[in-house]
Formats: sequence, structure tokens, C-alpha cells
Amino acid sequence: MAKSFIPVASEHHFPIQNIPFGTGIKPGDSLPRCVSRLGDFAVDLKELENQGFFADVLPHPVFQGSFLNDFMSLSRTQWVGVRGKLQHLLSEDTPTLRDNQELRQAVLVPIENFTSTLPVQIGDYTDFSSSKHHALNLSFMFGGPNSSLRPNWLRLPVAYHSRASSVRISGHPVTRPKGQVKLPDKEDSVYQISEKVDYELEMAFFVGGKVNELGDPIDVERARENIFGLSLLNDWSSRDLKVWEYVPLGCFNSKNFISTISPWIVTLEALEPFKQSLPAQDPQPLPYLNETDHSSYNIRLDSLIKTPSMEAPHKISESNMLYLYWSITQQLAHHTESGCNLRVGDMMGTGTISGPDQSSLGCLLELTWAGKNPIELPSGEKRTFLEDGDELILTGACTGEGYTIGFGEVVSKVTPALQDKYFHN
Amino acid sequence: MAKSFIPVASEHHFPIQNIPFGTGIKPGDSLPRCVSRLGDFAVDLKELENQGFFADVLPHPVFQGSFLNDFMSLSRTQWVGVRGKLQHLLSEDTPTLRDNQELRQAVLVPIENFTSTLPVQIGDYTDFSSSKHHALNLSFMFGGPNSSLRPNWLRLPVAYHSRASSVRISGHPVTRPKGQVKLPDKEDSVYQISEKVDYELEMAFFVGGKVNELGDPIDVERARENIFGLSLLNDWSSRDLKVWEYVPLGCFNSKNFISTISPWIVTLEALEPFKQSLPAQDPQPLPYLNETDHSSYNIRLDSLIKTPSMEAPHKISESNMLYLYWSITQQLAHHTESGCNLRVGDMMGTGTISGPDQSSLGCLLELTWAGKNPIELPSGEKRTFLEDGDELILTGACTGEGYTIGFGEVVSKVTPALQDKYFHN
Repeated sequence: MAKSFIPVASEHHFPIQNIPFGTGIKPGDSLPRCVSRLGDFAVDLKELENQGFFADVLPHPVFQGSFLNDFMSLSRTQWVGVRGKLQHLLSEDTPTLRDNQELRQAVLVPIENFTSTLPVQIGDYTDFSSSKHHALNLSFMFGGPNSSLRPNWLRLPVAYHSRASSVRISGHPVTRPKGQVKLPDKEDSVYQISEKVDYELEMAFFVGGKVNELGDPIDVERARENIFGLSLLNDWSSRDLKVWEYVPLGCFNSKNFISTISPWIVTLEALEPFKQSLPAQDPQPLPYLNETDHSSYNIRLDSLIKTPSMEAPHKISESNMLYLYWSITQQLAHHTESGCNLRVGDMMGTGTISGPDQSSLGCLLELTWAGKNPIELPSGEKRTFLEDGDELILTGACTGEGYTIGFGEVVSKVTPALQDKYFHN
Repeated sequence: MAKSFIPVASEHHFPIQNIPFGTGIKPGDSLPRCVSRLGDFAVDLKELENQGFFADVLPHPVFQGSFLNDFMSLSRTQWVGVRGKLQHLLSEDTPTLRDNQELRQAVLVPIENFTSTLPVQIGDYTDFSSSKHHALNLSFMFGGPNSSLRPNWLRLPVAYHSRASSVRISGHPVTRPKGQVKLPDKEDSVYQISEKVDYELEMAFFVGGKVNELGDPIDVERARENIFGLSLLNDWSSRDLKVWEYVPLGCFNSKNFISTISPWIVTLEALEPFKQSLPAQDPQPLPYLNETDHSSYNIRLDSLIKTPSMEAPHKISESNMLYLYWSITQQLAHHTESGCNLRVGDMMGTGTISGPDQSSLGCLLELTWAGKNPIELPSGEKRTFLEDGDELILTGACTGEGYTIGFGEVVSKVTPALQDKYFHN
């Protein structure tokens, strides 16, 4: 098995088999730069590019900016070319970097000295609803035990346009939103703090490659060529704002106050060994959604909570990216069915990924059944929704033979709502 | 009344009182540049800036790029400063440009040699529903004569996130979308061409100025400072795709195939003489939406159609921006209520603007009452929705004393759907 000259433990998320892409600030820099990651080091791609290491695999410089977009705009062949270069350069058998102390100094940045930044200049952000368990749970929750999926749900990957401006990376606090809420016992709506702040466990995927022109849909069989890679996504929701605002045009302020992603984008190449076929869909999708390779990835997705009185995070759910009904390639193809053009850097969310069991649900709304059954924490505390000071952690990883392909984590602490002239706590 | 040394007819949309902003390509250029407009000339702002004409009103160069965003990121004071400079420079009393043939040659581009481009690098695009007549008509249409507005409609400006990547300017063809449709006589949905392509008459407004930080709402009383200007917006809709996809998460592929805007952004300063108070709202909005100056603009908004067999466009509707219930400042404030950060260049749509009469409705869905009452054209043709080859024209203007402040127009021709392997006509 391939190894790096930098030791990486078998459970570490970023071995030489991973090679994710990100951006961040090195000591002494004022602007972010493009990097990869190996173990506890960021790998400086700008420096490597400047020294000519990618000259034979890239048509022109793509790592000189503060986002990955230039690199993402190339093709899978070139993404794979850079990945191969990095794996070779970081291999225990390659002396180039291993034995050159000066180069190591220039290229390898200890992760504790490195500040990750938003890796992609996001064009549009679209959120899907592609987990059947999640959709069914919401039907049961609000429609009763005899409810079923909406008639369109099994026919197309339902989606809505979401908000790109408020996407942040792990570590950014989640300011408790304020907004209009309609209380059951009052005739009028009120402006108050949201009392039902929830997380949503999702995967994000990012558009790259040669994108389609307006009017020209992407064929589902080729959609993979436009997926650069994946990250974890916590698609924060305010449940009380949502129920008042969302009919008939969908979620708005209940979603746009923040969405948080993990800072490292893991490529489809790193995930390839963990690809698994999904069950055949019933009913069979229309031809434009019917794909030869209907699959997802075996990525274990954990949700953890840490309240201020807890010493360590506590796992509240274990889901998996295999719990998708609609694949990410189907999502991408459907997005363009009527002609919508994608752009390099667009972000897509899968929607909350819930599994079949109580232990595999991807948000507190489901875990507490709309707040009816609070979850109990080791600290003796109970939670229906998140309270100020609570930290919510998402983490995701694939377990290989003697190695792990991981996504790191998305950690977010809920902080109190800001006072303003219309609201005093 | 102020006049320019360039003669501009009283009904012309772009007199010296207007001074809109745009971008486009001059003969010999390969990239768009920032311009203003007077009469039948584009006014080259990059050239004027390079010659130092804005040195005392701008902190640094802002007209060197291909979009207006740098200029939009300044403050109203600076926008007004540039407007004042231009009005002075173009005045019949100012010799600087008037009497300098070389400078005129460099700065004034005959509009027939100028190709307008998308003026703003749009961050996110949000669409509101702020015309009460439109919302009520849709309620009656689908819920019957005893229907009323949704309970939230009079309490908040309902909105949804829309798609920024597919915004185009006037002249861009509208490729008839394909997509999933559920026909009433079939059990399964089908993939076919949309048979109900509709226009929607809206106004767009663009975010500028010092924007808010994530978590920190914009006060409705100060929201005007973040509105750079307005354009016409045709927010194209596929009505048959919409009814199948939009429950419960809202419109997606039925809207994202294209939205078209007029290429000139008209400032609030130009519109100020046409500002009018809107009727008091009942119920009174919550304090965060309650504004001292609840107003809109008296902009006459015409919709015209020209089928291939018609010699001239035919007016099918005359609406007005005064037919808003929620003002654009209320829309902007509401957008940030839960903390969503705006970005310079964000585009907002008002939603379809319909008036109280059959003659003032802003889309074919209303004009034909969901296709039940086709409109009759002078050519003897009838239309329920748009057919391939039809041109739809929106135009908007304010009538002052001896002058007009106009928006130009948005012209779009519907072209046949593209063939693909999943669809053959």
C-alpha cells in the first residue's frame, strides 16, 4: 500500500490516498492560497506550481489565486494529473521532496500554523432533497402515519435554490437567527429569536470541468465529469421561521442565515474505492434520469453535540451517504433539464441524509420527532433543538484497508442572537 | 430645465436627467467596459476616469473592469458624485466636452456601434412576491373565488432564492425549456417540451454600498442606502414544469432556465421625482418592516408581444411599479431579518407586478386566466402562452415635465427547444 514519507496514522483522514484540495492562509501571508493536505500538513500548491512541478500536467497556472476555481475549471484528466503528481511527490519512495529540507520547508505547512478559508468562490448554491428516509419522516411527522411521499418525490430529485453568500467554513459561529414566527396561541406573527435552531447533515458537491451552455442540459451519463469533489455540509435551519414562511415558495430566511462546510474538498478519485451501487429505483426514472452507474459512496457520517457543560462531544447520530435515493449525478442532470447553465464553483447540497433507524437520522427535527422526544445527553441534559453555546460537529470518513479517507469535520457553535432596535432579549 | 449639448427628444428614455449605468463593448474592444448613456450615445466611463474626470469624487479607480460592481461597492454619496460630474460634463453650458472634438470622439460611442453586456456580476438572485393583485389573482385562479391570500402574505414579503447563473440581458433568446410534466390524463410524469412558457413583468433592483455582515440585519429605515438602482426584469416561467415540481420546496427548473433584464441600471436619484407614497398597509407591519417612507415609483410598465406574422409589437398590458404592496426597502430589510448577508451585485426581483384591472396584469397566466381566455392579437392570432418565434417586450418609463426617465426595454424571442437523445420533436 502506498505510503508517504510523512507518517500518517491509519485512522487519520488525510493519508496519501486522499489528497483533498483546499485554501488557507500561511504564516506571513495576507491572502489565502491553494493547498492540498497530507496528515498534519497543508501542502502548498502555489509554491509547487511556481517551482514548475505541474508544468507537464497543467496547461497554465491555476493555483495563483485565493480560490480553487481556476483549477476546478480544468478537466478530470488534469485534476487526476495533479493528484498523481502529488502522490508521487509525497511518496516514501520519491526523494525529490523527502530529501530536500529547503523544499519541505517551503511546501509543507504544519496544520496548526495554517488557517483554512472558504475553498471555492461559490456561484449558486442549490439544495436537493434526495434521502427518502428523510422525506418520508417529514411526511409522517406533519401528515400522520398514513402519509406518504409527495407524488413528485419518486419522479424527480426535488430541489430549491439556496443562498451562496452565507456559506462559511467549519469554525464560523452560528448566530442564532431572529425572524417572524407565528405562535399557535397568537393571532398575529411576532418578531423574535428563533427557538428551533437545527442542524442538517448533508454532503456538498462542487461543480467543475467544462460546464454546459444555457439551454443545453447535461446528460446524466456524463454528469460525473462536472463533479470536482465533495465536502461535508451543515445546512442550518430555523424550524420555527420555516413553518411560517415556506408556503408556497419554499424556505427563505429559515435557511439563508448560514450554511457551513468542511474546508477540504475530497475528490471522486479518492472516494472511488468506496463507491457502491444503490438499489434499483422504483418507479424506474424517466430516461433523462436513468443512469447505468446508479451509485453513491460508503461514507460514514456522524453527528455529535457538545454542550457547554460537557467535556467531550457526544455522538447523536450515525448516517451514511449510501442513504441517498437520488444520486449526485442524477441531481446534477436534473438541475439542467430545463436548460439551466451550471458554473464552475456552484455548490449543491444533497439534502439531509437520514437512514432507516432512529440512530441514523440527520437532524434534530427527526431525532426528537419535532421536539416531542428530547434527546438525552451524557451530561444529564436534554435537547430538542440547539441552545446557545452548543457545538454541533459533523464528521465523515470511509474506512479502507489500513487507511481512512476522511472529510475532517464541520464544527459550529451556536451564539446568542444580536440585539437590535426591534429586538431586546 | 437641464439640457445636454446632445439633443435628446422629450420621449427618449435617456436624457441628461437619467444617467443610467451599464457595460458593453466598444468597436475594437474585446472586453466590456463601464459606461453611462445619454440619448443615442454610450458615455465611456473608463475613458473619463483615465482622463481624471472623477478624481475628486472617487477614492480610487472603479471603472476599469467589465462590470459595475467596483463602482456599486462605493456609497450613495459617490454614486451621486459621479452622476453630478456626468450631468455637468454633458450639459449644454459646459464647454469641456461640448467643444473638444477629440474628447467627444473618445468618450461618446454611437449606440448602434455599442454592444451592451450584463452590467453586474450578480452574487445571489432573490425573487419576491410583492404585488397583492398578482398574489390574489393566483389564489383565485387555483383556489376559486372564495380564496384569499396565504396567511403569511400580508405579514412579510414572501420570497425565494432564485438562480443567478442564468440571468441574461435583453436580446438573448429564450430557448423553450424541456422538463418533467405531469399531464392530467396520465398516471406518470413525462419528459417533454414545456407548453406553457410565460413571461413575468418585474422590476429588478441591485445591491450596492456598504453591505451588512452575516448575522446583522439591515434596518428598513436605512435599506435605501444599499439599493444602487433598478432595471426591468422578465422572470421567465414554465407554468407546466412549475405545477409538478413546486410542492413543497418552491420553483426550481420552472424558473432557472433564463431571466432577462434591461441592460441599463437607473438610479434612485433619477427616479426620485417619481417617488410616490404607497397606501398604508393593513395590518400594520411588524416594527422591523414598518417604514417612515413607504413608497414606490410611478413607472409605467408595458408588456408587448410580436408574433412572426405581426409587423409591429402589440401592447397586451400596462402595469405600474406603484402596484407594489411591499416596497423594495421592506423587501431588502426582510431578506436580512434572520442575518443573511447581502453582497454588492446581488439582484432582487419584485415578483410579477399586476394592477387591479384586466389591462394591468403582468403575465399571460393572469391575462388568459390560466389559459382559459386566450388573448386576441391584431393579426387575428390567439395566444394562451408563448409560441416559438414570439417576441415579448417589456418597457418602462416615468413621464416628467418635458422629459422621460426610461429603462429601455427587455426584448426576448422564444426559440424552439433543443433536440437531445431523450427528446425528439
